[in-house]
Amino acid sequence: MSLRNIKLTVAYDGTNYHGFQEQRGTGLATVQEELEACLGRLTGQRRQVIGAGRTDAGVHARGQVVNFNAVGWPIPAERIPLALNGVLPGDIIVTLAQEVPREFHARFSARGKTYRYSIWNARVPSPFHRLYSTFVPVPLNDGAITAAASILTGRHDFKCFQAAGSTVQTTVREIYQIEVEREGSLLHFVFSGSGFLYNMVRIMAGTLVQVGMGKAKPEYVNQVLESRARVMAGPTLPPQGLCLERVEY
Amino acid sequence: MSLRNIKLTVAYDGTNYHGFQEQRGTGLATVQEELEACLGRLTGQRRQVIGAGRTDAGVHARGQVVNFNAVGWPIPAERIPLALNGVLPGDIIVTLAQEVPREFHARFSARGKTYRYSIWNARVPSPFHRLYSTFVPVPLNDGAITAAASILTGRHDFKCFQAAGSTVQTTVREIYQIEVEREGSLLHFVFSGSGFLYNMVRIMAGTLVQVGMGKAKPEYVNQVLESRARVMAGPTLPPQGLCLERVEY
Repeated sequence: MSLRNIKLTVAYDGTNYHGFQEQRGTGLATVQEELEACLGRLTGQRRQVIGAGRTDAGVHARGQVVNFNAVGWPIPAERIPLALNGVLPGDIIVTLAQEVPREFHARFSARGKTYRYSIWNARVPSPFHRLYSTFVPVPLNDGAITAAASILTGRHDFKCFQAAGSTVQTTVREIYQIEVEREGSLLHFVFSGSGFLYNMVRIMAGTLVQVGMGKAKPEYVNQVLESRARVMAGPTLPPQGLCLERVEY
Repeated sequence: MSLRNIKLTVAYDGTNYHGFQEQRGTGLATVQEELEACLGRLTGQRRQVIGAGRTDAGVHARGQVVNFNAVGWPIPAERIPLALNGVLPGDIIVTLAQEVPREFHARFSARGKTYRYSIWNARVPSPFHRLYSTFVPVPLNDGAITAAASILTGRHDFKCFQAAGSTVQTTVREIYQIEVEREGSLLHFVFSGSGFLYNMVRIMAGTLVQVGMGKAKPEYVNQVLESRARVMAGPTLPPQGLCLERVEY
């Protein structure tokens, strides 16, 4: 079978989608289905799109990566973004297209991912950030959050930060870095790691917020990790604060 | 008639509204109608809301100002934002409430307003800024824009920057300052002035963009002003790039 492997970097506002992955037969709009439908319109045949990460409903991406087989579509890679953006809805934008080796697989070739969780930390909510952050009206202690984040960093069994009911072979993951950044009333947690369990970023963010509110000391995070019990960690924060920033290969 | 005059500062995402002002009998949602409906629910009687500026459909506000008569509603002013935000939709937020003298009128007492027009100036559009900016994919010359902006600053007859068909007594206005600010891929024009004609900010922004693209030299703006002819100025840019930042009293 012939293959022309194209890698796309995709940004999307996840507000109006039921996540990235197609949900056949449900009639629900997903980012993957939009991409596949638009590729089908442009190239005259169905193209399966492989995504690096399955973002949930309401979760955003600035740097999702996908690949697909463009065989029979003789457009130069550098002209693909303009062509696709002309037919895609305004909340999905292809920012880059590159020809990649045939063995490149958006999901299995990924070596790391970076996610950002954003908090709107102010006295009153913001109409402009409501779909891209979670509102926390009480002051947060950045020093305590940074201390807790440094405990989470590294190679650990993150079973306690996994949504109940998930089944994976191992719950050990490595977090390379967690940055805590203030930008006006926004507080961002930027997580870079080898991979993440289901809901792991949103549960880690919920735990950091609890530490920031003073509900638990930073050292409590050690107990959470050791417990391997979901009930010990903080709540799963809402999807709209989460954004897949980039995927490393 | 008894009067308890309350001034509210209101932020809203105008995407889902047909402007600020109520449009009776049309069934179209407006910010004023949402505010009046929520005040009615909270206080048990209809309250007319007076707005400082009539923002158009799709235009946003970070600092719209309104006032209303709260007589018979004995809540302290400082508790009004929390009460109103509890019933308002998430895209309209009251950020401040203050008791003001009975003669305060949100529209007639205003001494100046500041509007910001935002351009997403990058190679590809942004899914996150599409509702809050206008996309301009070609490079813009900030120096030329700043020079043109300085010509617009001051007291002039702005007839050429007024939507065709408007009728006002005088088209002379004073612009105190126009700031041109870069923030990553965003380019903001911040206009402060005594008052603005209908569509004036969006037409000035369209003219500045044309100068930035090199379609006209900054000095051309002198001719535009002198001509008093709408056809000489640039296009009216779309509403979603516009935001009412604040009103001065």
